[in-house]
Amino acid sequence: MPTVRLLADDEMPPESRAVLDDIRATRRSDFVNNFWRALAHDPKTLRRTWESLKEVMGPGVLDPKVKELIYIAVSVAHGCEYCIHSHTAAARAKGVTEAELMELHAVIGMAAETNRLVTALQVPVDEVFQVR
Amino acid sequence: MPTVRLLADDEMPPESRAVLDDIRATRRSDFVNNFWRALAHDPKTLRRTWESLKEVMGPGVLDPKVKELIYIAVSVAHGCEYCIHSHTAAARAKGVTEAELMELHAVIGMAAETNRLVTALQVPVDEVFQVR
Amino acid sequence: MPTVRLLADDEMPPESRAVLDDIRATRRSDFVNNFWRALAHDPKTLRRTWESLKEVMGPGVLDPKVKELIYIAVSVAHGCEYCIHSHTAAARAKGVTEAELMELHAVIGMAAETNRLVTALQVPVDEVFQVR
Amino acid sequence: MPTVRLLADDEMPPESRAVLDDIRATRRSDFVNNFWRALAHDPKTLRRTWESLKEVMGPGVLDPKVKELIYIAVSVAHGCEYCIHSHTAAARAKGVTEAELMELHAVIGMAAETNRLVTALQVPVDEVFQVR
Amino acid sequence: MPTVRLLADDEMPPESRAVLDDIRATRRSDFVNNFWRALAHDPKTLRRTWESLKEVMGPGVLDPKVKELIYIAVSVAHGCEYCIHSHTAAARAKGVTEAELMELHAVIGMAAETNRLVTALQVPVDEVFQVR
Amino acid sequence: MPTVRLLADDEMPPESRAVLDDIRATRRSDFVNNFWRALAHDPKTLRRTWESLKEVMGPGVLDPKVKELIYIAVSVAHGCEYCIHSHTAAARAKGVTEAELMELHAVIGMAAETNRLVTALQVPVDEVFQVR
Repeated sequence: MPTVRLLADDEMPPESRAVLDDIRATRRSDFVNNFWRALAHDPKTLRRTWESLKEVMGPGVLDPKVKELIYIAVSVAHGCEYCIHSHTAAARAKGVTEAELMELHAVIGMAAETNRLVTALQVPVDEVFQVR
Repeated sequence: MPTVRLLADDEMPPESRAVLDDIRATRRSDFVNNFWRALAHDPKTLRRTWESLKEVMGPGVLDPKVKELIYIAVSVAHGCEYCIHSHTAAARAKGVTEAELMELHAVIGMAAETNRLVTALQVPVDEVFQVR
Repeated sequence: MPTVRLLADDEMPPESRAVLDDIRATRRSDFVNNFWRALAHDPKTLRRTWESLKEVMGPGVLDPKVKELIYIAVSVAHGCEYCIHSHTAAARAKGVTEAELMELHAVIGMAAETNRLVTALQVPVDEVFQVR
Repeated sequence: MPTVRLLADDEMPPESRAVLDDIRATRRSDFVNNFWRALAHDPKTLRRTWESLKEVMGPGVLDPKVKELIYIAVSVAHGCEYCIHSHTAAARAKGVTEAELMELHAVIGMAAETNRLVTALQVPVDEVFQVR
Repeated sequence: MPTVRLLADDEMPPESRAVLDDIRATRRSDFVNNFWRALAHDPKTLRRTWESLKEVMGPGVLDPKVKELIYIAVSVAHGCEYCIHSHTAAARAKGVTEAELMELHAVIGMAAETNRLVTALQVPVDEVFQVR
Repeated sequence: MPTVRLLADDEMPPESRAVLDDIRATRRSDFVNNFWRALAHDPKTLRRTWESLKEVMGPGVLDPKVKELIYIAVSVAHGCEYCIHSHTAAARAKGVTEAELMELHAVIGMAAETNRLVTALQVPVDEVFQVR
């Protein structure tokens, strides 16, 4: 259950409604997921978050599918259930296969294991890894 | 500083030395980084970790460069300084560009922000994201 | 679902019951939330936790509303659903407004983003920030 | 040590230099801390991050000092050394007292303890905390 | 709800079915919990994870009950609900008492509190703790 | 470097000095580690933290060595360098062997891996694990 009510289109401030219009236009879909309906209480944060997301997840040097895999990896490490579901759905929609998702999970798990081993052992960074 | 001494080749048990030989052969390089020299106190964990890493980071359905990006993403979310440095170096060695690394960081940062917004708002998962 | 049964007043040890009496008296309310009913299995931890909470969240140099905002921020970063709900409720009860809560969330999200960017880039601490 | 070189003013792209000019003008200080010099490799992320930070930490409904306390709380929970130092310095510069910082730490520690107790016990959210 | 369907025995690939047979034989029980049914989509990761778990949690120098307590501690710090429930059940099955579980929780909570206090204060490691 | 100055005995308030006297008496050692010298700025938090630690880590139903292992596990998962060093030293002082420490690390790493796999797959808790 959310800590604020999820707002229907006709319950939110006009500035928030305008952001939802842009989300719909950008995604070419009428569906707007719950995250934006929770943020809609705060038009300023809604707009800034959406504009940032559009810029970061938009065209760049990394494949959009790879960006979704990275997003999932971070969301798993942060334990964000909603984000894992929404970005796994987004990854599938962009063509990421089930085999790729399972391999992603294997890498995440492996990284978690060696991260914690390294931290337990407090391994010092090798000189060769240093940026000059 | 580490919580155990980093072992030189001639200080470690023969089973650990054998794992280092395989690391060198697999990577076609004489250099063995500190992580393995710390783990070398425990040949069983050293062998299992190396064999697992070889399997997970070896040939699969994801590009080896993408796997390094995922590894970095998890390491950043877990705050593992050593892992960030070693896998950033590995990514560069595999041909990941500086522009790709910066875009990776932007995605990690964006994911962190929306992860925490979602958690703060406790947004419920949309039905449409459910796997049937 | 909890890993232990939540105890009703007449099911808990008398020492735990005494702590609940103090919770009720301090808060001037008959209602005791689930956290204390789970801890009630262990009177020693129940008492220590309650006494500590009373001291930390009691009168000091920070406004009680600010302390609730800090509590929520930490709970979000730790991903503690229960804590987010209970302290959001406590914040509202103490007069924190919806606009303040949304601004809190924006700050939490922003901090998460720059925290991860800084960690990804392993930015060294500027000398000027050092305490002498 | 950083994963990228920190850029001096005359080493960065002009778009990044322009952002630094705005940082200097906004803060009325010539000093620009390392975070921005690391981000300067990526003018797009540098600009977006600075614009977002200016908006989030700028005038709103919460006291600027309180926003710094929240920023520190999140940074501690995420284990971001640089962020803890830079925002502790910022808090002091804005007039946060040593006593307030110590009380902040006490609240962070207390929240961490109850967060983990709640998670260990998997305490279900009380109905009374639900938003309708 | 899972991000993949949980597979019944007759839905999974034969290599996954073989791992489940080994889980049943090793545990001397017909019951196989959901974790393995989700991993069963990926026979390679299923096998590696099961073989690693068998080795790590099998006979060694630490009491099997102590290993379960450690597993719970890590799972709480990572906020993994499923893992907390499954390893709390495993701990009870191995004879860990309710009093031991409550004391475990107290130690986890205390560690979380001092961890965050130390991080907030950025306490430097005492020379006397260094390994030579 | 710390965010506050570490206080020598003659620089701290008398109430803090009294707590250090109790630390010395309890541990039968003149040495007082940096954590307490940082907390000494705030006698109230210093006293509460020390009293809590004495109670939690004092005699109970778990072996003191096991409590140190749990403390290390939590500190690793939280990425607290100081805490890892101080509690690894404490564990060694109480008789924990190097083999036990390495096995602890293996369990921590394994738990981290399965924690993240479970989170990635969002595995639902089996009914059989539920407490009635």
